[in-house]
Amino acid sequence: MDGARRRFLEWSLGLLAASGLMARRQEALAAEPPEVPTWMTSPGAGFNEYGAPSKYESKVTRTFGRSQAGTTGSGAIRTPLEALDGTITPSGLHFERSHSGVPDIDPVKHRLLIHGMVKRPLVFTIDALLRYPMVSRVHFLECAGNSQLLYQPTPPSLTAGQTHGLVSCSEWTGVPLRLLLDEAGADPSASWLLAEGADAAAMSRSIPMAKARDDALLALFQNGERLRPENGYPVRLLLPGWEGNMSVKWLRRLKVVPAPIMTKDETSRYTDLQADGKSLMFTYPMEVKSLITRPSHGMSIAGAGLHQISGLAWSGNGKIRKVELTTDGGRTWVEAALTEPVLPRALTRFRLGWKWDGAATVLKSRAIDDAGNVQPERDKFITEHGSNAIFHCNAIQAWSVSANGEVKHVYA
Amino acid sequence: MDGARRRFLEWSLGLLAASGLMARRQEALAAEPPEVPTWMTSPGAGFNEYGAPSKYESKVTRTFGRSQAGTTGSGAIRTPLEALDGTITPSGLHFERSHSGVPDIDPVKHRLLIHGMVKRPLVFTIDALLRYPMVSRVHFLECAGNSQLLYQPTPPSLTAGQTHGLVSCSEWTGVPLRLLLDEAGADPSASWLLAEGADAAAMSRSIPMAKARDDALLALFQNGERLRPENGYPVRLLLPGWEGNMSVKWLRRLKVVPAPIMTKDETSRYTDLQADGKSLMFTYPMEVKSLITRPSHGMSIAGAGLHQISGLAWSGNGKIRKVELTTDGGRTWVEAALTEPVLPRALTRFRLGWKWDGAATVLKSRAIDDAGNVQPERDKFITEHGSNAIFHCNAIQAWSVSANGEVKHVYA
Repeated sequence: MDGARRRFLEWSLGLLAASGLMARRQEALAAEPPEVPTWMTSPGAGFNEYGAPSKYESKVTRTFGRSQAGTTGSGAIRTPLEALDGTITPSGLHFERSHSGVPDIDPVKHRLLIHGMVKRPLVFTIDALLRYPMVSRVHFLECAGNSQLLYQPTPPSLTAGQTHGLVSCSEWTGVPLRLLLDEAGADPSASWLLAEGADAAAMSRSIPMAKARDDALLALFQNGERLRPENGYPVRLLLPGWEGNMSVKWLRRLKVVPAPIMTKDETSRYTDLQADGKSLMFTYPMEVKSLITRPSHGMSIAGAGLHQISGLAWSGNGKIRKVELTTDGGRTWVEAALTEPVLPRALTRFRLGWKWDGAATVLKSRAIDDAGNVQPERDKFITEHGSNAIFHCNAIQAWSVSANGEVKHVYA
Repeated sequence: MDGARRRFLEWSLGLLAASGLMARRQEALAAEPPEVPTWMTSPGAGFNEYGAPSKYESKVTRTFGRSQAGTTGSGAIRTPLEALDGTITPSGLHFERSHSGVPDIDPVKHRLLIHGMVKRPLVFTIDALLRYPMVSRVHFLECAGNSQLLYQPTPPSLTAGQTHGLVSCSEWTGVPLRLLLDEAGADPSASWLLAEGADAAAMSRSIPMAKARDDALLALFQNGERLRPENGYPVRLLLPGWEGNMSVKWLRRLKVVPAPIMTKDETSRYTDLQADGKSLMFTYPMEVKSLITRPSHGMSIAGAGLHQISGLAWSGNGKIRKVELTTDGGRTWVEAALTEPVLPRALTRFRLGWKWDGAATVLKSRAIDDAGNVQPERDKFITEHGSNAIFHCNAIQAWSVSANGEVKHVYA
């Protein structure tokens, strides 16, 4: 057990000893051994080849899925962050943002083309890609439009997942893109790539060559198994920390080009209309952000006493350096414990013991990344950026706790 | 990009440049843009609330599930290691070892009792446990009987998963057991616990108090979501690095006791019959082990040239220090690259570039942990332990490669 873990346990025990928690957890014991439940009286279910969650968890699903009018797969569906713990998102609950539904791609027939300003245009089958050197890394993916409801003038009456669930985190395994660019002989003077997906929208973005040669992957595996269809099967681009939209799913084409292409997906969308009427574009890294997932909107706290506050922090710029929490509406801030190892561009779980006195209050978290970026209060964020945009909102999330224990989304 | 990753990429590129791989990957390009596949000609599928793998991956399932005669859930089913990459096992493919099937436990009715030599016997509901301080850690679980077919005199004609797939790795989140033992006021003179599951077998093991107070968890979440039924829903014990059987699933009782109970599950089973006729018992940590998952038995290597060898290493004693590979039947050994971060008692992915000359050969991996334990050759292992046992086999796994590229299990 390392020092940090030991300190965490000692801290937890100190809080437990100081609280009234122990007494409340006790129930009288009538007999020993305990009553035998019915499920111990006959053999249980046999083996199955691919497992599923318990039927008692059937309400834990992706949430708030909405498609544009007249379409079935042009929109997004969100990860239920408030029902999860840890940092890995199970692939069945990874958020999805699609522009024209999920294509039914036969992996044997799929091709990836690398062309444009290259010495040797190349076409790859999936079997060919699987033979290349691969690496595995844990990274979050976040839709640029995540948390966009915080631009609204009134706080949305929605859960943490419904508001912020366009972020998920997986262990990705794939081929470093740099290898294939070198194999194709990409022209050193070409500083951009066009990436195109094999969906009906031909979702396309321009990618700076510097990112492509740094940490970009052609991802083939997600959390150990091959990519899920809605996350780009059989191959997707993965640009760690950048707007999820740029990690083009169902990747079929990379064209080496001298300048950005100005595709529909980077001009009509994924630009950020500011207060002065001008739009920012090519705002790639996702900003430092955090939110408390437990307790959060829609939950009810079962009485005063000791609780553990738990949440997630992340930054497209690198690692989370620290997360500070306030349990008194911003008067005082305390540093939370971070789950080790803290990885760059990955979801980071934070936790803090909290002894609730039963009075109404407001909880907030504030993340700081290792580049020194500080997550801003919503007032400051709106003052600086206005409320015209729908992308790149990283304002601090506040949850109110009423005296009866109800937790709600507030602006505070 | 950190130094290790940069070195890995440079190494990979060096191998690529030195190989004949580039030319073979090229296909003539007839036209630009490439042909539009049928799945781009109409909108794809809409959203679903809980995702599943692609239908094209339907053969990637848990494998080699076998139940004792006359039963349906007394046996094991294995993780298809050869089809996976990275280190996290998707929960749907996590191995299962059950002694009387999977009980259908209503989490609202489930109770966990802590009693015996304690000041305050305690009964916990799941809701109560969920309020306690939690931690998240990545750990493997391995059945003590994993790899047992290597005790047989002839090598099994089975895949990597069928032979070694009783090991999986998850991010577990739960309550440090130490907190609850302190809350109950466990007698300092009591050095053992009895742990009992709520299945029809009432699977029970004796647990040393030192382990319970070190890194043991009451696990509630697996890979972000609540435990899967076959992995102990709604709560299981987790003893990192120790025989999987001791991480009692569906945990319903922990009794603080002065000495081991000698349950049926630690006397008739989970003891290791040695060559001299004596049995070892209470052999808790799983030994240092590794295997190459790609290429492995049943695969066919598509021609000479550059390939990446990939596999898994782990040790119940701590971190993997290094993994050495031989591609010439044991004459020379080369150190493989380990995927960072290397975590204690977690699956560790290793990789090595290999330029196959097309001649028949034998591939092996050998893991060394940070306690200095070295995975033994099978000959040495059988000489020392005999072949009466079915548990704790960590012999080196050899795969032969024939000139036509076929990969098979051999003893070599």
